[in-house]
Amino acid sequence: MGDNRLEHQIGFILEVDKIKNVFRQTFLTDGSRKENDAEHSWHLALMAVLLKEHAAEPDLDLQRVVKMVLVHDIVEIDAGDTFCYDDKGALDKREREEAAADRIFGMLPADQADEIRALWEEFEAMQTPESRFAAALDRLQPLLHNYSTGGAAWREHGVTSDKVLQHNRHIANGSPVLWEYAETLIGDAVEKGFLPRA
Amino acid sequence: MGDNRLEHQIGFILEVDKIKNVFRQTFLTDGSRKENDAEHSWHLALMAVLLKEHAAEPDLDLQRVVKMVLVHDIVEIDAGDTFCYDDKGALDKREREEAAADRIFGMLPADQADEIRALWEEFEAMQTPESRFAAALDRLQPLLHNYSTGGAAWREHGVTSDKVLQHNRHIANGSPVLWEYAETLIGDAVEKGFLPRA
Repeated sequence: MGDNRLEHQIGFILEVDKIKNVFRQTFLTDGSRKENDAEHSWHLALMAVLLKEHAAEPDLDLQRVVKMVLVHDIVEIDAGDTFCYDDKGALDKREREEAAADRIFGMLPADQADEIRALWEEFEAMQTPESRFAAALDRLQPLLHNYSTGGAAWREHGVTSDKVLQHNRHIANGSPVLWEYAETLIGDAVEKGFLPRA
Repeated sequence: MGDNRLEHQIGFILEVDKIKNVFRQTFLTDGSRKENDAEHSWHLALMAVLLKEHAAEPDLDLQRVVKMVLVHDIVEIDAGDTFCYDDKGALDKREREEAAADRIFGMLPADQADEIRALWEEFEAMQTPESRFAAALDRLQPLLHNYSTGGAAWREHGVTSDKVLQHNRHIANGSPVLWEYAETLIGDAVEKGFLPRA
């Protein structure tokens, strides 16, 4: 281990500070402002620890889930946050994010660049119990925030209940229990007028 | 597992959203604003993953370190952030934080309340390899931010190099390698005029 290795690690750690200025469409639960990717990622990591027992496969590797959610939005430093109901933004999302991954993860020592890149690819592909659970949390958290703010982000973007149900359905792959909870929440949001019916 | 258990977990997850409005004295590396506890905790968790090899005991339990840093500042929702060079604030810090831990961790199902409380107590006591490494990261991160901003928080509070050296010395217990790095950084900050000599 040379000094060089630590310098590269610190360089990356300072670079990713920029994620604190990448703002999402989701509001904080008190509605005071939108949240950023660092706050969101912290919240998901804590949710992974606390909600693991509800995963479709509860004996999954929690450490991999936590690592995945800690790094899953780092590419947005370059690629920006694409709102999940933005169909146009989705078209070149992958391309923009690949380039970001090359640049940002490439700042790390090669073995760690490979590890973080693999975690991000795994998260995106949603083919493992860990990534499916991580993706479920990544959907559930904004639902909780939207519900808590009376649907602030939904109303701002004119999102309707059919879109929300369709977009969040894959929560069920990561956790049937959390999807059941989310469905109830969405139904209740429609009932209370937080979310317009399609 | 009853519905009640999930409701308690979600209640806690929503409550701790408030940590995103607990602001620290440290500025973001671009100097644009101060950072909050959620952002800080995310940063530490990622640092734990990337810098584990530099821990005094590199075969420590990474998962426990990550859990510890994810929850270490939650008590500040009630107790507020006590600036680390604030000797007066330090006097009743423990009392304020104990009461906060009782209330906030107490929202979780009993087994999880116990686990999170134990992690927080372990972090505070700094008696295990995991908590000493977590504490080292908790000191190194603001040093990196202060250095990156030309000493913004140090100058705002009139902190001098002797205080910084004294206050951060315990980084060495968690990681001699990171303390060596930090000492160089502090010396360089004095040299560059970011940090007044005592």
